[in-house]
Amino acid sequence: MNASSGWIRTVSPDLEKPSLQDNTADVDRLVKVLRRELECLEVRVDLPLLKIVPARLREWEYRVSAVVAKEGPGWRLVDVFPREDDSGVWGVAVDIGTSTVVVRIVDLENRTSVGESGFVNPQTAYGEDILTRIHFASNEDGLDTLRKVLVERLNKEIARLAQAHAVPLKRLVGASLAGNTTMTHLFLGLNPFWICREPYIPAVNRLDLLTASQVGLGIHEAAPVLVFPNVGSYFGGDLIAGILASGLDRREGVSILVDVGTNAEVVLGNQDWLMACAGAAGPALEGGVARMGMMAGPGVIDHVGLEAGTGELEIHTIGEGPPVGICGSGLIDLVSRLFLTGRIDMRGKFIPEACGERLVDEDGIPTFTVVPEDASGTGEALTLSQPDVDALMRSKAAMYTILTTITGMVGLSWQDLDRFFVAGTFGSYIDPQSAVTLGMIPDLPLDTYESLGNTSLEGATEGLLDGEALPRIEDIRDRITYIELNVNQEFMNLFSAAKFIPHTDRALFPSVADWEAAVPAPAP
Amino acid sequence: MNASSGWIRTVSPDLEKPSLQDNTADVDRLVKVLRRELECLEVRVDLPLLKIVPARLREWEYRVSAVVAKEGPGWRLVDVFPREDDSGVWGVAVDIGTSTVVVRIVDLENRTSVGESGFVNPQTAYGEDILTRIHFASNEDGLDTLRKVLVERLNKEIARLAQAHAVPLKRLVGASLAGNTTMTHLFLGLNPFWICREPYIPAVNRLDLLTASQVGLGIHEAAPVLVFPNVGSYFGGDLIAGILASGLDRREGVSILVDVGTNAEVVLGNQDWLMACAGAAGPALEGGVARMGMMAGPGVIDHVGLEAGTGELEIHTIGEGPPVGICGSGLIDLVSRLFLTGRIDMRGKFIPEACGERLVDEDGIPTFTVVPEDASGTGEALTLSQPDVDALMRSKAAMYTILTTITGMVGLSWQDLDRFFVAGTFGSYIDPQSAVTLGMIPDLPLDTYESLGNTSLEGATEGLLDGEALPRIEDIRDRITYIELNVNQEFMNLFSAAKFIPHTDRALFPSVADWEAAVPAPAP
Repeated sequence: MNASSGWIRTVSPDLEKPSLQDNTADVDRLVKVLRRELECLEVRVDLPLLKIVPARLREWEYRVSAVVAKEGPGWRLVDVFPREDDSGVWGVAVDIGTSTVVVRIVDLENRTSVGESGFVNPQTAYGEDILTRIHFASNEDGLDTLRKVLVERLNKEIARLAQAHAVPLKRLVGASLAGNTTMTHLFLGLNPFWICREPYIPAVNRLDLLTASQVGLGIHEAAPVLVFPNVGSYFGGDLIAGILASGLDRREGVSILVDVGTNAEVVLGNQDWLMACAGAAGPALEGGVARMGMMAGPGVIDHVGLEAGTGELEIHTIGEGPPVGICGSGLIDLVSRLFLTGRIDMRGKFIPEACGERLVDEDGIPTFTVVPEDASGTGEALTLSQPDVDALMRSKAAMYTILTTITGMVGLSWQDLDRFFVAGTFGSYIDPQSAVTLGMIPDLPLDTYESLGNTSLEGATEGLLDGEALPRIEDIRDRITYIELNVNQEFMNLFSAAKFIPHTDRALFPSVADWEAAVPAPAP
Repeated sequence: MNASSGWIRTVSPDLEKPSLQDNTADVDRLVKVLRRELECLEVRVDLPLLKIVPARLREWEYRVSAVVAKEGPGWRLVDVFPREDDSGVWGVAVDIGTSTVVVRIVDLENRTSVGESGFVNPQTAYGEDILTRIHFASNEDGLDTLRKVLVERLNKEIARLAQAHAVPLKRLVGASLAGNTTMTHLFLGLNPFWICREPYIPAVNRLDLLTASQVGLGIHEAAPVLVFPNVGSYFGGDLIAGILASGLDRREGVSILVDVGTNAEVVLGNQDWLMACAGAAGPALEGGVARMGMMAGPGVIDHVGLEAGTGELEIHTIGEGPPVGICGSGLIDLVSRLFLTGRIDMRGKFIPEACGERLVDEDGIPTFTVVPEDASGTGEALTLSQPDVDALMRSKAAMYTILTTITGMVGLSWQDLDRFFVAGTFGSYIDPQSAVTLGMIPDLPLDTYESLGNTSLEGATEGLLDGEALPRIEDIRDRITYIELNVNQEFMNLFSAAKFIPHTDRALFPSVADWEAAVPAPAP
C-alpha cells in the first residue's frame, strides 16, 4: 500500500518490537514513528482504536500499515492493517442531489474511479423540491425520517457498488459528500427550517471533518467524512465542489462557472478573488415546464439539428428510440433552430406563415408540432406551445442578466473571460452554439465553453484525492464574496433587453448572424 | 457565569441577531465571536451540538453563555446555556485508587471544592490487587466487567454527591481522573495484559482528551475528560497528578516526592529536570503485614507517643475508642518509640530485659503486648511480634535505599533537597520524626517534610482548574526520566546497611541521638 500524497494516506512505518531497553507503550510506539513519517506533532488515536491496536500490533508482529487522515495541524489514525495485506484502500465520493444521488468509489492508491452509480433521492417521496422537504422536516420525526431514508439508501448503494467491484466495506476509509445547503442539512440531521425563511440562515456553513460512525455511513466506522461546507442558504457545498472540479480557484485568468438549473448559480474569479451569486432562472431550462418537457432518459429528445439540404428539424433522442418528450438541452436546441430557420421571431413568437401546417391553434394557444403522432413514442404528437417558448425566454433572459450583472459588478467585459465552465449533468448536454443563439450565454469563441459534467461528484472526488483539499475548501469558502442579486430597476431593464433572441442589441451576438446565414437551404 | 481562566471556560459573547445584512449561519455566528473572545483560530462544534444550538440561539434570542474546552491549538464547544441562567458550572476530579476511589466536585467558577466522598473500588470483588485484576481481565468479558463495575459505581457516587450539593448533572462540564497505569487501563477498557509481563508494555501512555460519552461518565455527555497519562507500567497518572499537586515541576530548588505504599514511588527534580523510579518497599509500611495491622479506620492506632514523666507508650486511636489494630503510621511510631526507649535494638530486635513482662514467647516467637486484653477493643491483646518488626525493617530499608539510589544517581546529597513531599493518604499520617528515627527517610530538618495528603485527587483537581494543565501534564510526561532500579550488588549493599535503626552509619542521622537523649525518664 502506498497512498501517500492525499490527506487520507497509508503509511507503513518501521516499528521496533518492545524490549526492556525500549518499553514505550504499544500505541505510543506506533504514534512515535507515524509522527516521524508524517512530519507532524500530533497523531490522534481515538478510544476504540486504543482498545484494539495493541493486540493487532502483537498479532502482526509490529509489521503494520496505518491508514491516517489529516485533521487540523495533525493526523488521526483510522486503522491498522497487516503490512503484507495488499488489498488496497478506497474512498466514497457522493453527489447528494435534490433529485438524484450519485455514488462513486475511488481507489485512493491509484487515484482512479472504480465505479459509480446513481439513484433517485428517496427524500423525493416526502417532497419533490427543497421547499416541500423543509416543510416536511418540521413534522415530528420529519427531519430524522428524511435523514434516515437518504442515509439508508446511500448505504445500500455503497454496499452494492463495493460488492460489484470487490471492495471490502472496511477498506472504504474515507468519504466526501457535496450537496446544496438543504441536502447537506438533511444528510446531517440539521434543522433546515430557517434556510428558506428571511433572513435565510443555515444552521451551519463551516463543517469540521466528521467520521462515518457519526453520520451513519456504512463504511469503515472511523473513516473521515468530508461534507462540503456551504457559503449560505443559496450557495451550497455542491458549488464549492464545482469550483474544486473546475480549478477556477487556482487559475491565473478569470473564469466563470455556471450551474444551469432552476437556479442559475454562478461563480466568477481566479486565484486571487471569487465572486458568487445565484438567481432564479426558472424551471424552463431543465425542461421542467414545457408540456412535453421531462428529465433526460430513454426516448427523450436531447438534441435537435437541421437536416442538410432540407433545413428540416433533425430530432435525436437518448437511446435513439421513438421520442417521448424533451429535456432542457433539447428544448434549447429546438427553439434556437426554430429561430435560425425563421419560424420564431426575435421576440420568441411563432411566425404562422413560416410554420405552415405544423402550427395549430389549440384553444387560442399557438402550438407547434415537433413530432407528429405517428412518429411519437407516446402515441400522441409532441408539441411546443407559445407559453412553453415564453417560459424559456424568461429563463434564458434571467440567466443572461445574472451573468451580465455579476461580470459588470467587477468591471469586466465578456472578453476578459478565459474560460466559461458549464457545471451540472444537465448543463453538459447543452450545445453552447444553441445557447449563444438564444442569447442565454454570451457570444464567446465556442472553445471558451467547457462542459464539466457532474461537478458536484467530480469536486467530491477531488476532495478525497487532493492532499490540500481541506485547506483549499476552507480557503474557497473564505474567499467567496456572495452577492445578493437585487432585482431592482436596473436588473429589470437588463432582463427586458435580454428577452429577445438573441438580444435587443444584436451587436452583442455577432456570431448569430453568421449562423443564420449558414442555415441549410431547402432543396430546390 | 465567569469561569474564564481555566481550560474549561464559560464565555458570554455578544451575538448580533441575524439579518439580511448579516446572514451568517447560526453556528458560524457563535463560532465567530468565540474565536474573537478566545483569541484562537478554531472552535470545534460537534455534530450533536450542530443539531441543537441553532434552535437554542433562537429560543434565547442569541443571549447565551457558552462552555468551551481547550483542545489542542483551538477550543471545542461543550454546550450553550441561557445568558441569564446563573446556576454555575462544575467539574469532577477523581482519584481512581486500586482500593479506594475518591470523587470531588469542583466549582469551576469559584475554583473551590464543593464536596467529596470515597468508596471501595468495586473491582476489589474481582481481585484485591492489581495482578489479580489483570489476570481476571483475560477472562471473556473480564475487562469489560471490570470497566463497567467501576464506571457504574463512579456514576452512582457522582450522582449522589451532585444531588447532595444541588449540582445538576448537566452542569458537570468536565472531569479529570488520575490512577495508576492499570487502573487507567481498566477505566478505559484498555487491555492491561502486557503491563505485568516482561518487557512491561502498557497499551498506551499518552492520552488525548476524551469526552464523557466516550468513557461512559454520567455527567454532561460532551464534557471533556482528562485522564492523566502514564509514564510506564510502574509509573502512572496518579504520580503525574502528584507532581502537579506538589508543584515540584515548577520549583527552582530540587524537591523529592515520595508516595509511600507497597510500592515506593519517587520523583526527584525541579523546573528543569525530573527523575522518577519505583521500587517494592513491601506492604509493611501500610500496616498490611503485622498481625494486628489494618487500614486506617475507627479504633485503629494511628499514633504512638511517650507519656511525659513515665516514658510509657501513649496510644492514640482514630476516633479515640478502644484500640482494635494498628495502621502504617501507628506502626512506624510504635517501633520508633520502642527503639527510643531502648526496648528494640538497632538491629530491630526486642531486648527482653528492657521489655520485661510485656514480651512473651509465643511458639518461639518473641511477641510484645502493645495493648493488653482488658484495654483492647477486640477482647484480645494487640501484639507486635519479632517478624512484624523484621518486615518493617526490610520495608524501611528498601525505602531508604531507593531514596539514596535516585539521589546519588544525579549526584545530589540530602542537603541539596529543598522540600521532601510525602504523597498519599497513608503517607499523610506518618510522623516524619518517627520515620527519620527508624532511618526510613533522611535526617533533614523536620520542616523540610511536607505531607500533601491524597495527591492523586489534588492533582486531578489541579488538572481541572489550571488553564495550562494539559500542556503542563504533557511537559511533565515528556521530561520525566524513568529509572529502572537495578537490584544489583551495590543496591544490596546499601540495603543491608539500611537494615539498622536508624542505619549502620549513625552519623547519617545525628538528630536521632538527640531524640534518644530527650526520652522522658520514668518517674523516680
